[in-house]
Amino acid sequence: MTATVSTIVAPEGSLEVLSQQEVERLRDTSAKGLHDLLRRCALAVLNAGTPTDDSRQVLETYKDFEIQVIQEDRGLMLKLDNAPAGAFVDGHMIRGIREHLSAVLRDIVYVANEIQHGGRFDLDSTDGISNAVFHILRNAGTLHAGERPNLVVCWGGHSISREEYDYSKSVGYQLGLRGLDICTGCGPGAMKGPMKGAHVAHAKQRNRKGRYLGISEPGIIAAEAPNPIVNELVIMPDIEKRLEAFLRIAHSIIVFPGGVGTTEEILYLLGVLLHPDNRDIPLPVIFTGPAHSAEYFRQIDTFIRYALGDDAAKRYRIIVDDPEAVALAVRDGVRKLTEYRREQDDAFYYNWRLSVPVDFQRPFHPTHEAMAALALDTSLPVFDLAANLRRAFSGIVAGNVKETGIQAIEEHGPYRLSAEPGLMAQLDVLLQSFVAQSRMKLPGSHYQPCYVLE
Amino acid sequence: MTATVSTIVAPEGSLEVLSQQEVERLRDTSAKGLHDLLRRCALAVLNAGTPTDDSRQVLETYKDFEIQVIQEDRGLMLKLDNAPAGAFVDGHMIRGIREHLSAVLRDIVYVANEIQHGGRFDLDSTDGISNAVFHILRNAGTLHAGERPNLVVCWGGHSISREEYDYSKSVGYQLGLRGLDICTGCGPGAMKGPMKGAHVAHAKQRNRKGRYLGISEPGIIAAEAPNPIVNELVIMPDIEKRLEAFLRIAHSIIVFPGGVGTTEEILYLLGVLLHPDNRDIPLPVIFTGPAHSAEYFRQIDTFIRYALGDDAAKRYRIIVDDPEAVALAVRDGVRKLTEYRREQDDAFYYNWRLSVPVDFQRPFHPTHEAMAALALDTSLPVFDLAANLRRAFSGIVAGNVKETGIQAIEEHGPYRLSAEPGLMAQLDVLLQSFVAQSRMKLPGSHYQPCYVLE
Amino acid sequence: MTATVSTIVAPEGSLEVLSQQEVERLRDTSAKGLHDLLRRCALAVLNAGTPTDDSRQVLETYKDFEIQVIQEDRGLMLKLDNAPAGAFVDGHMIRGIREHLSAVLRDIVYVANEIQHGGRFDLDSTDGISNAVFHILRNAGTLHAGERPNLVVCWGGHSISREEYDYSKSVGYQLGLRGLDICTGCGPGAMKGPMKGAHVAHAKQRNRKGRYLGISEPGIIAAEAPNPIVNELVIMPDIEKRLEAFLRIAHSIIVFPGGVGTTEEILYLLGVLLHPDNRDIPLPVIFTGPAHSAEYFRQIDTFIRYALGDDAAKRYRIIVDDPEAVALAVRDGVRKLTEYRREQDDAFYYNWRLSVPVDFQRPFHPTHEAMAALALDTSLPVFDLAANLRRAFSGIVAGNVKETGIQAIEEHGPYRLSAEPGLMAQLDVLLQSFVAQSRMKLPGSHYQPCYVLE
Amino acid sequence: MTATVSTIVAPEGSLEVLSQQEVERLRDTSAKGLHDLLRRCALAVLNAGTPTDDSRQVLETYKDFEIQVIQEDRGLMLKLDNAPAGAFVDGHMIRGIREHLSAVLRDIVYVANEIQHGGRFDLDSTDGISNAVFHILRNAGTLHAGERPNLVVCWGGHSISREEYDYSKSVGYQLGLRGLDICTGCGPGAMKGPMKGAHVAHAKQRNRKGRYLGISEPGIIAAEAPNPIVNELVIMPDIEKRLEAFLRIAHSIIVFPGGVGTTEEILYLLGVLLHPDNRDIPLPVIFTGPAHSAEYFRQIDTFIRYALGDDAAKRYRIIVDDPEAVALAVRDGVRKLTEYRREQDDAFYYNWRLSVPVDFQRPFHPTHEAMAALALDTSLPVFDLAANLRRAFSGIVAGNVKETGIQAIEEHGPYRLSAEPGLMAQLDVLLQSFVAQSRMKLPGSHYQPCYVLE
Repeated sequence: MTATVSTIVAPEGSLEVLSQQEVERLRDTSAKGLHDLLRRCALAVLNAGTPTDDSRQVLETYKDFEIQVIQEDRGLMLKLDNAPAGAFVDGHMIRGIREHLSAVLRDIVYVANEIQHGGRFDLDSTDGISNAVFHILRNAGTLHAGERPNLVVCWGGHSISREEYDYSKSVGYQLGLRGLDICTGCGPGAMKGPMKGAHVAHAKQRNRKGRYLGISEPGIIAAEAPNPIVNELVIMPDIEKRLEAFLRIAHSIIVFPGGVGTTEEILYLLGVLLHPDNRDIPLPVIFTGPAHSAEYFRQIDTFIRYALGDDAAKRYRIIVDDPEAVALAVRDGVRKLTEYRREQDDAFYYNWRLSVPVDFQRPFHPTHEAMAALALDTSLPVFDLAANLRRAFSGIVAGNVKETGIQAIEEHGPYRLSAEPGLMAQLDVLLQSFVAQSRMKLPGSHYQPCYVLE
Repeated sequence: MTATVSTIVAPEGSLEVLSQQEVERLRDTSAKGLHDLLRRCALAVLNAGTPTDDSRQVLETYKDFEIQVIQEDRGLMLKLDNAPAGAFVDGHMIRGIREHLSAVLRDIVYVANEIQHGGRFDLDSTDGISNAVFHILRNAGTLHAGERPNLVVCWGGHSISREEYDYSKSVGYQLGLRGLDICTGCGPGAMKGPMKGAHVAHAKQRNRKGRYLGISEPGIIAAEAPNPIVNELVIMPDIEKRLEAFLRIAHSIIVFPGGVGTTEEILYLLGVLLHPDNRDIPLPVIFTGPAHSAEYFRQIDTFIRYALGDDAAKRYRIIVDDPEAVALAVRDGVRKLTEYRREQDDAFYYNWRLSVPVDFQRPFHPTHEAMAALALDTSLPVFDLAANLRRAFSGIVAGNVKETGIQAIEEHGPYRLSAEPGLMAQLDVLLQSFVAQSRMKLPGSHYQPCYVLE
Repeated sequence: MTATVSTIVAPEGSLEVLSQQEVERLRDTSAKGLHDLLRRCALAVLNAGTPTDDSRQVLETYKDFEIQVIQEDRGLMLKLDNAPAGAFVDGHMIRGIREHLSAVLRDIVYVANEIQHGGRFDLDSTDGISNAVFHILRNAGTLHAGERPNLVVCWGGHSISREEYDYSKSVGYQLGLRGLDICTGCGPGAMKGPMKGAHVAHAKQRNRKGRYLGISEPGIIAAEAPNPIVNELVIMPDIEKRLEAFLRIAHSIIVFPGGVGTTEEILYLLGVLLHPDNRDIPLPVIFTGPAHSAEYFRQIDTFIRYALGDDAAKRYRIIVDDPEAVALAVRDGVRKLTEYRREQDDAFYYNWRLSVPVDFQRPFHPTHEAMAALALDTSLPVFDLAANLRRAFSGIVAGNVKETGIQAIEEHGPYRLSAEPGLMAQLDVLLQSFVAQSRMKLPGSHYQPCYVLE
Repeated sequence: MTATVSTIVAPEGSLEVLSQQEVERLRDTSAKGLHDLLRRCALAVLNAGTPTDDSRQVLETYKDFEIQVIQEDRGLMLKLDNAPAGAFVDGHMIRGIREHLSAVLRDIVYVANEIQHGGRFDLDSTDGISNAVFHILRNAGTLHAGERPNLVVCWGGHSISREEYDYSKSVGYQLGLRGLDICTGCGPGAMKGPMKGAHVAHAKQRNRKGRYLGISEPGIIAAEAPNPIVNELVIMPDIEKRLEAFLRIAHSIIVFPGGVGTTEEILYLLGVLLHPDNRDIPLPVIFTGPAHSAEYFRQIDTFIRYALGDDAAKRYRIIVDDPEAVALAVRDGVRKLTEYRREQDDAFYYNWRLSVPVDFQRPFHPTHEAMAALALDTSLPVFDLAANLRRAFSGIVAGNVKETGIQAIEEHGPYRLSAEPGLMAQLDVLLQSFVAQSRMKLPGSHYQPCYVLE
């Protein structure tokens, strides 16, 4: 039997002052469908302690979980029934989790009221989408004026080896010693390691303002729940806005070994950076891992050069088994970026100058039809190919760990992807190596591919 | 010649993180007409040191004053030309004034973008208006969750005697010793005295969080510029929303001697409190002044009883020449209000429960026609009469000190008000005594009435 | 009948952690005689609200006042019986006064245990005394490392005209606008005005760290009780260490009109600055007052030039009726002092480099014999004469307001001072003008001179 | 070759304001012999990153290390030559280490000036010693008034297995989740694990005031250097005052598996608690370790019961392999202790009520003669035996890791201990098991016993 707790908690750190209308909208569980979204995200956050990457299983285990918004004396309260016991200590919710719960509520309300139904944002235009991303981040308190660039976005697999995890901690430690902050996608593995390392380093440097920023989205949060070390959490409405958020606020990007999700991120990043408008925009990108990951990065590099060309490979640097060298490279790169922003009178906290083509912004829904229809051909313009490859990997992520994806695979069998033969061969090598290296799912579970290459 | 300073300053405390769209809208001086509004309010704030209550004269004196929003490296900057020298010390703007300037910008932008053009608020309905008031106050950071009720709204004349001013300071001092905070309409006289007194008392009690909240509106701010002691400033879009803001956030109201503006506030307050929905809502109201003001309050009391009936007089208490008794009455009243809110699970920071009839909410534009058309007759239902009397006094305030009012009087002569004879006689007595006691304009200027009673 | 309060309060801000030995010593009222000292200083602090400068009368009025140190659960408590009611609001002691009470306790304990009976300080040597002054100030938390010089010591009379008081406020206001902090000897008049002015200016500049430092001594504190605005209070053991403390921590000195106490301070200051070792040490000194005080400063200037020579007059500048000019002169002087300290690698917080001759350091007890024996002759070396004149004025202060002095005069009649005829004439003119201008005692009381010039 | 850095750093967090005399004394390296002490302790702190427990080897490796106190503009600076490179990041000293360096300086200066040469403390009397311990702790800022009891002293070996280390982290984590703070003796192993665990838990609970207090002494600090996570460091003058400090400030004590040092601590603790005066004083004591340590604690328990009797065993509780149960037992025990202190009006921050017999307070110098002379016989009164056993183990610690001890062993061979046969047998079993379990020295080194049982 699963241990659960039922209680009433006050949200922490935001939402304290709501209008009557806002409270009513929050409590209105039927009409706008916010309640189901809230319930699923809240459960993900409360379940942070449990090692799992199967969204559906989480929902299944806690099918009696319920959350209600109630209005009390001093403000809003949350009534929880049958919540995962791991979120509590002696009956009191861990404060970091309470803050995450509050962040979930804040972003769901804001996105629904201001972004999606407010009529202020044209979500079909590239400017409208970028503006929406900005407003969600600002509303979440993520954009800090007056601070020098120091935010390092770290990507990498949720399912990695102990050695890779320890390495990501070492890198985080070296970054933290140098006053750099960490942003990841939340979750275990390479998304947790750098934060843990930086957290220790910040303590040694008596840096009490260290940021451990997690950016998630409703589809993935259950599979990659935020560790309570995360002290800023933002729930973007979809994977595309989450990826844009990473790029807009990053002052540097580090990629650790990972699987299909990480490859999706790499393709998004390089696809955007290859855009001619972005040619001169500085953004230090480092691929790194421990000694034994040299082969892994050689594969990734080969795939990128084949699919996107050698120009793409100029935007990143591979450093193997040297955390201090990674930190120094990031530090130097961030300095150049800082100079550039200063010369251009650009804001430090949001990279307005970056062009993100609308093909990378529009939400992609990985139905079987959509997946089968993806044109994967090196004869395409490089952006189009990057965009389509990104979508293909996004679909595989969904089939692996997202609730809707898992369900679709169960009903219709694996996604069918077709590509020109050369690219197909490359894809095959890459994906098989991910399977072989247990990068698809957390260890202990047998991986059944959710795709077929034809 | 008037001493002026030209410089570039950074706004302080808000507005640090704006989207490109927001900056453009701010800089767009022609289309939406915000620039003129910004220029007038900014000038008022910068001119805080000069004792004047003539909006037009301020604008005339600094007709070369100009303000521009520019975008720089780290954020928004304000370029000022020919600004009043009194706002600067050795070339640096006084920080309190810099914060006020920033508040002006914040509220003008918010009201224009979110309230007036956002389409989210139905400004014709009573709920829509109350909601707008709430959002403007929240956006300004005025609503503090988690604090016990302690905000005392102080009303009274901008042109009062030295003795009355010192008395208002003493009352503020006694309130401050007891941990109470002050809210006024900004400006000199009874709006400054209580803040000064509370400020000294807060220092003696080592209370570093003392609030000196000023609520103004674009029409009056030039005549009643915020003293830099004010550490929270809100610019509501019009007098009606300003009055509603006072009532929604007050935990107690003190009325010092004053003139037509103060009478407008009293009529608004009593008109609202007399509404049957508000019968049981606790709100301590004290009329107070030094010994020689006993006669003044007898007149006010007589007028209220005549016009609104003895029930109206039950909602306030008159205390003459006893600052400590005032503070104790407020303290006790606030305790009862606190208990009531707790029992009802009402928020402490905003009085949602209060019904404000739409007749008190709709902006009244005191044209000569509108003034002449006001029905002032005790045969009217008491709310209607209170609402109309409030409008009449609001018009006289405009004719006395607001730019548009002064101009209208110059062009068309005095407003013509007609009332039933008994009420007319009462009005006449009251207004003549205001003139005789120099409550219409700051001393030194000859007062030429802007109205005729017919 | 005098209103009093009996209660138990916790000291605030120091003394929280005492050893058992320290507590016992504090409670030991008989042996070391600390209890009487504590009782008198505590009463002075509690009586801050009452306008009086007669130490004896204070003790008489509250002859039933009693204070006891008791040990409770979390630490030390103070049991008060029949304390002046003005120190309380609704039964709770004003927090600023509670801090003063704690400071009194802290300094009495420290001076008794560490300075006088610790055996660590040679109080007969100039180095030992200066070291003791340093340790008392450090123990009180007065010396702040890492802050730029900005402390302005303000001297002047406790009994001054309303015009002079308002002027001292204006000067404090102009200093405060420029980020300067204020140190005075506590008490009313010119010791309160600059703090009040600076306090308002600091608020306008949102300067929350403004310092209002009062330095008193047990003999004078009852006559010049600290206003609760004082947010740092130090009780030096005697007038000589108090004067040395002023000079060691001052970054500038302003002298407002005053009487014999102010003259004592001027003589001390100039006597020390005239020492050849101090020739090159920068310390901006301004004498200032409103328009009508021009004559007053002419007299002082004449007396100084006659008694100490024209060189002495080079160390100060007289500015009449121009608060802003005073603030600018101070600002510029402090900048030069800052440069000098930096060049010399001197600390900012304590002027170690200043030589204070031991004649200015040794406590002077103004018995009738000691007063009569003072050699006041311009044929003496200038330091000796300055030192003796300082003692003479110190004695007159005691005869005017200190408990022991008043008692000595009652028993033995006025002090008899003799001087060479020319100096005698100058002294006579000066003292008579102080009497005529009511600078000897607070207005309302008839002044009976406590001295005879023979 | 060893990497070193030469630089000048400012101490952090104390010592900012020193008198000229204090600075001179600090710089006076010859007379009082402080310089050598300072150099050794500073080196230990700077060498924190290197895993070693051999004090002599540290000094040998960095024999060119030098430290000098110099006086600069704003205060004291430290000039370092050939300092261990691990204390620096890109040429800047890690701030935590800078604070430790400052703490070393603070305590060396205070102990030398105030405790040893001040003449205020009678270091031959039990009261004098306890008072000295109190003053050293207070001067270090360790005693916090107004905080609820929550300090858990954790003891255990510096050389423990990975499993034991991880277990100590888990216990620290469970303590940290419950708002408990950690105090250890500094160094690796069981002294680092609980701090690391609590640090993560405090972050999850957003507890920014978590305390990681390390109490060391000059003889052991090089062997057990403080991890930079330690945010409060105190250097007591000798092992006996260090042990007394632990007992006076502990609100609970946890003992993890360890070797001779840990046994010394246990003997000290139980010896003191067995004193009749201390019979009713509550102090929760838990012995705990992972599953495989059950046997270890059975041995310890057997030894205690044999040597000190079954009464001694009533003062501790053994919990195997259950971190949460440990934390709950501590929490409950601390609650009882809190109630007791409250009832007795005892301070929370220092256990004055505890009687520490002078035999446990007097420094023991483990010469070969002193060791050989120790009477170890169960016919002795139980306190005497506990005191002597404590000394015996203290000597073995010195022979294992302290500089003077290692040197003495090299010169004179192993210590010779004699005891009555039964006790000897018990001792032999215990010590041999420590050797077998590698608890004597860090793994990798061969352990050569520094004692012979005869």
